[in-house]
Amino acid sequence: MSFQNDLLLRVAKGEQGERTPVWMMRQAGRILPQYRKVRASLSGFVELVRTPERACEVTIQPVDELGVDAAIIFSDILVIPEALGLEYKMIEAKGPYFEKVIESAQDIANLRTVNPEDQLGYVLDAIKLTKAELNGRVPLIGFAGAPWTIFSYMIEGQGSKTFSKAKKFLYTEPELSHQLLQKITDATIAYLKAQIKAGADIVQVFDSWAGVLSAESYLTYSLPYIKQICDAIDEAPVIVFAKGAYFVRKQLGELNCQVLGLDWNMDIQESRELFGNNKVLQGNIDPCLLYADFATIKKETIKMLNTFGPNNHIANLGHGVYPDTELDKVKCFIDTVKEHRFS
Amino acid sequence: MSFQNDLLLRVAKGEQGERTPVWMMRQAGRILPQYRKVRASLSGFVELVRTPERACEVTIQPVDELGVDAAIIFSDILVIPEALGLEYKMIEAKGPYFEKVIESAQDIANLRTVNPEDQLGYVLDAIKLTKAELNGRVPLIGFAGAPWTIFSYMIEGQGSKTFSKAKKFLYTEPELSHQLLQKITDATIAYLKAQIKAGADIVQVFDSWAGVLSAESYLTYSLPYIKQICDAIDEAPVIVFAKGAYFVRKQLGELNCQVLGLDWNMDIQESRELFGNNKVLQGNIDPCLLYADFATIKKETIKMLNTFGPNNHIANLGHGVYPDTELDKVKCFIDTVKEHRFS
Repeated sequence: MSFQNDLLLRVAKGEQGERTPVWMMRQAGRILPQYRKVRASLSGFVELVRTPERACEVTIQPVDELGVDAAIIFSDILVIPEALGLEYKMIEAKGPYFEKVIESAQDIANLRTVNPEDQLGYVLDAIKLTKAELNGRVPLIGFAGAPWTIFSYMIEGQGSKTFSKAKKFLYTEPELSHQLLQKITDATIAYLKAQIKAGADIVQVFDSWAGVLSAESYLTYSLPYIKQICDAIDEAPVIVFAKGAYFVRKQLGELNCQVLGLDWNMDIQESRELFGNNKVLQGNIDPCLLYADFATIKKETIKMLNTFGPNNHIANLGHGVYPDTELDKVKCFIDTVKEHRFS
Repeated sequence: MSFQNDLLLRVAKGEQGERTPVWMMRQAGRILPQYRKVRASLSGFVELVRTPERACEVTIQPVDELGVDAAIIFSDILVIPEALGLEYKMIEAKGPYFEKVIESAQDIANLRTVNPEDQLGYVLDAIKLTKAELNGRVPLIGFAGAPWTIFSYMIEGQGSKTFSKAKKFLYTEPELSHQLLQKITDATIAYLKAQIKAGADIVQVFDSWAGVLSAESYLTYSLPYIKQICDAIDEAPVIVFAKGAYFVRKQLGELNCQVLGLDWNMDIQESRELFGNNKVLQGNIDPCLLYADFATIKKETIKMLNTFGPNNHIANLGHGVYPDTELDKVKCFIDTVKEHRFS
């Protein structure tokens, strides 16, 4: 299939683009009135994730409404624990909640082997539908959580400021931790390969809770599993976004992936040096900047673009867009990137 | 008054100590059965903070039970918003909650001018009692929240993962933000001076939510106010602990303070270089390490001590000790520091 706009893919592969491509984490979501309408018609978030036609619909909404350079399949990183056997609920204004969590070797042994076509067919169907519907307008991004982040939820059972329960498991059960991380990794590799086979043009690995680990813990329990994923996926470019993992940027730069995400705490030039010259960088506006007035959003976005420079950059926020951001402010960010030319 | 053990003070002032001094953030708290007993006899956390005799009692408990090299007055950073006019409750297992938050210029104008003797006399009384009771056994640490962290609570009304409401206020109301931050700063300076006058031998400024800001926001809205505090306090050494503020370590190193705290994400050697040679460093064990077995705690603590080296270091965790940590594990950490000699 030929693309009308494959700018993001070309830049992700290290080619020079005619401008900086742009998309936003959580672009398919509550910032869009169209999304809120679909969401209100369903029983909940999980139903939306599990209904391919509606997931496809909300995936394409930001392409229509915002003009972003990529769609990202509407789904959730927690479909992996679910496929492994731990069901979750999404509790309004609180976040995910697991009735049952991993506490023992037996719990880990009881986990299912994930066959994406069996347990995650609804995501693959959503990808196929979306690919057909997009018809080459823009590339489609698939995604999964990094093993450490998925592990955190499977132990903790919900969000946490410290993830101390998950970290306690690392410190008290190092061998079981590795067993569980390996099971998650195997499932994730199969899942990402299936997403690509179903039509995802590029995939992102989200290590959302990277920042709670020490460098040593990160290098023991997170990075090696992300490395396995990067080494296993050669069918499409891989973006790794390890939020808060500033302290292992050098090691992240050695991953066999094309793109690395930056959060807004990470200095752009310093990150370029640490990540190395052969990586494309993605990011990194503070999502809260989009609360500012239009002039400030424009000024700061241009400053960010110029600091990254014309090559090897995919514009994004440094985290998912916050649900209460005004649509016009989001558009101001997207349009500023698309209109910017480097002098 | 002469001290039996003033090791921490001497090291904080840059003198060479006979060993590394040690204390722990949140050492007076739920890890101690003695604390839980006192706490159970009262209606709640806030009552404990407001009752000098009991606050004194729990402040001294870790000196008796753990043998730490300093006591830290049992109190809360949120006594400052309360003194300014915003009352808070501590909700079990949830954290602080403010019924009323700051939303407008009028709300800021309505805040009281803090006279510590009037609104915070109960803390000063607790300090006086504790000083008398300690009778020079170890120094007493006073403390306050950094203005940005206090501001976050006053806008947000409670804890948050992103503090996006507080950050939205910075981006939409920069002038009002500075007004509020200045009011908090003035109150904090008066409060810390009063603590020192009442007997605190050294004070710590906690910037707990430093890590949610970008470097630019931090340098605009947090650091200048911490600087005012450091410049105003010359009666006692000042410790600044800006959790997560790795991206402004160079600028933190320029503060007129004696000690800088490190969290467990911060590389020790890199931080020494960034903070500069004239600073004493404090930290930085991952609190979750204390969930590990004794051998691991000992090994990692010794590694940390050796990486900091024999001078200009106060041992601590990189964050407050978690309430469910076993007492014997805490003791293992403290004892390992106290027994260690540099070869």
